[in-house]
Amino acid sequence: MALIVKKFGGSSVATPEKMLNVAKRVLEEKKPDDKIVMVVSAMGDTTDELIELAKGVTKEPYKYAREMDMLLTTGEQVSIALLAMTFKELGEKAVSLTGIMAGMKTDSAYTKGRILDITPARVQEELNKGNIVVVAGFQGSDKYGNPVTLGRGGSDTSAVALAGALGADTCEIYTDVEGVFSADPRVAKGARKMNEITYSEMLEMARLGAGVMQPRSVEMGQVYKIPIHVRSTFSKNTGTIIREDYTMEEKSFSIRGVAHDEDVTKVAILGIADTPGVAHKIFDALAKANVDVDMIVQSMRNIEKNITDMVFTVANTDLVKAKEVVEKVAGELNASKVLIEENVTKISIVGAGMLGSPGIAARMFGALAKTGVNIEIISTSEISISCLIKGGSVKEAVNAIHDEFFPREG
Amino acid sequence: MALIVKKFGGSSVATPEKMLNVAKRVLEEKKPDDKIVMVVSAMGDTTDELIELAKGVTKEPYKYAREMDMLLTTGEQVSIALLAMTFKELGEKAVSLTGIMAGMKTDSAYTKGRILDITPARVQEELNKGNIVVVAGFQGSDKYGNPVTLGRGGSDTSAVALAGALGADTCEIYTDVEGVFSADPRVAKGARKMNEITYSEMLEMARLGAGVMQPRSVEMGQVYKIPIHVRSTFSKNTGTIIREDYTMEEKSFSIRGVAHDEDVTKVAILGIADTPGVAHKIFDALAKANVDVDMIVQSMRNIEKNITDMVFTVANTDLVKAKEVVEKVAGELNASKVLIEENVTKISIVGAGMLGSPGIAARMFGALAKTGVNIEIISTSEISISCLIKGGSVKEAVNAIHDEFFPREG
Repeated sequence: MALIVKKFGGSSVATPEKMLNVAKRVLEEKKPDDKIVMVVSAMGDTTDELIELAKGVTKEPYKYAREMDMLLTTGEQVSIALLAMTFKELGEKAVSLTGIMAGMKTDSAYTKGRILDITPARVQEELNKGNIVVVAGFQGSDKYGNPVTLGRGGSDTSAVALAGALGADTCEIYTDVEGVFSADPRVAKGARKMNEITYSEMLEMARLGAGVMQPRSVEMGQVYKIPIHVRSTFSKNTGTIIREDYTMEEKSFSIRGVAHDEDVTKVAILGIADTPGVAHKIFDALAKANVDVDMIVQSMRNIEKNITDMVFTVANTDLVKAKEVVEKVAGELNASKVLIEENVTKISIVGAGMLGSPGIAARMFGALAKTGVNIEIISTSEISISCLIKGGSVKEAVNAIHDEFFPREG
Repeated sequence: MALIVKKFGGSSVATPEKMLNVAKRVLEEKKPDDKIVMVVSAMGDTTDELIELAKGVTKEPYKYAREMDMLLTTGEQVSIALLAMTFKELGEKAVSLTGIMAGMKTDSAYTKGRILDITPARVQEELNKGNIVVVAGFQGSDKYGNPVTLGRGGSDTSAVALAGALGADTCEIYTDVEGVFSADPRVAKGARKMNEITYSEMLEMARLGAGVMQPRSVEMGQVYKIPIHVRSTFSKNTGTIIREDYTMEEKSFSIRGVAHDEDVTKVAILGIADTPGVAHKIFDALAKANVDVDMIVQSMRNIEKNITDMVFTVANTDLVKAKEVVEKVAGELNASKVLIEENVTKISIVGAGMLGSPGIAARMFGALAKTGVNIEIISTSEISISCLIKGGSVKEAVNAIHDEFFPREG
């Protein structure tokens, strides 16, 4: 017997026919004693349609975030009702539960809520009655009982958190790819599916731009020590298992993946006095404006003049806000110049193994050099190395690095 | 200051534009200190669309009544979210609450629930904060926390019950007619809007086929002594106030209205032994088959043979079930014959005043006689007289009776 939480996204349940496929597939794989919890999103484009509806009464629906959540949570509620009916139509016992009913307690940050706690007594009770329990992903309620939707990727987080609270054996995340790849398969020709990856590596991959899983759900898995099985909706192959440590003797690569992110703006504040508190002043102002800063490099430029440069990256979408803040702060700091470059690319390699292998960084830089790409900034963490590049072919650069660490066969 | 519950049906909130009209209208009539609770239904055809969606996964969605309620309750939830946004867009404080959040406790008769109790603490709290509170009609939850939709006309019942629980000053039911009429205006040329009508009269009118209000909501008003103001969505005229007793010196008519119902089947079981328990046997069997019986007349036919006839009416929709039951019971009772006539018409007059006026019945029969209509059965209650007729023009009969009691001017 296993207790398994299975999460299917909106495209997997977009039509009654697709729901039937999902239900059949789940029942085919179910062993007689297995207990199954389904976590599902709103059908297909439902959420977009609801947003459109709201635009009929106000130009800025998200201004009324609490009411938006009242509206948007109906999307998953429709899905769970229909999917539970589908299971029943196939002769199974099934019951649907909203996020509130499943005990998902969130904060009151409407439209971008965070799960605070889960008390899944009702889920447990329905499982004990022999039901397949179909739970609305992406939603919960705050302490006042108001419906709250979770932030981006919220359904994954719902599923993993619920798996944790139930002490599930595993949490399966169904997606449109076969698992987690060593690089984006659309870019790197030799990209291969990884059988296993650790939470830390997956988090680092996600942070560095690999899109399969939302970081928050991986963190949740790490906290609860729930293995997350990322697998395809369309095949029965084993996907990638995200867990604490490797269990299999997988062919050993020195790194686990190559991530890249083209949505990057580089900001440089040049010629600022190198005195205590300067960094705080800059990044505190950015934080207050809700700008997420990624790579940060401070370089000593001129010892005589005691001035330095501060270089960092933000998402392209934060460019306008960042520019405003930075220009103000640069003025206050008497900086000599502010340089802003949009659409630069960050390429990173990730792997817990690289800590003990000093040659890894050199191999990465070598691969980039061969493609004639110039490195603008380098930044490292315990399990990753990132290079900011500009110009040249991103695709060529990603392939060069990937081929260096994952030699193509044949 | 007044606390007013206002109920708007699905057609009044069918589009964002209509919602805006509703919101503006409510704000125009609102006095500064008024506390307003809105009870709304699902937008336009939403409920039908959700049922269609369910038919995509099962031919008989209502077989899964609990899941249907999970599905259908999303309809009103969309309405309340959008209407609350509309009020906010107009600069008002507003908040939406589902039936569950508004404290509507129901039994577990999914898709046809009954309100057991209301604990509207949250509604009160939001009113005290200065909010217009927009509550989902037609829904509540059972003791397990499952969403439950109320039976037909459920939104009216929600509104009146909520008004009762809140101790509201009045409950306004907005509809597509100007109020309660002395007869169906599409049929009776002289039909006039009544300014007032008592709960008992309204109940009797509803029971006898006048469609404006669902009986259950009128009962609820009577229990809580909440005046129900039935009025038009499209005009600001005063409609009809349903209350315990008349307060105005309204022009006094001996009856309050003429109701008619063409959806009637007459069933006659002829030649059955007139012994104790016969009536019980027949109507118990019908009750067990869930057939609602309306007029019942038992006539002594033959003293020598000690046999009698039992005649009663059921709704046309119950014809098949009734026929089956009656033929079985008639066989057991050795009845000589069963006669079933579909599409007969019941015409009734209603008025608390008729008790003390013995000539009323004669005037009704006289009016029918003048139009050449034959009366098949007569049945009376404390405040009504009903005649079952067959053949002739229903319209002519209704007009003749109406003109008798409500003389047309000019």
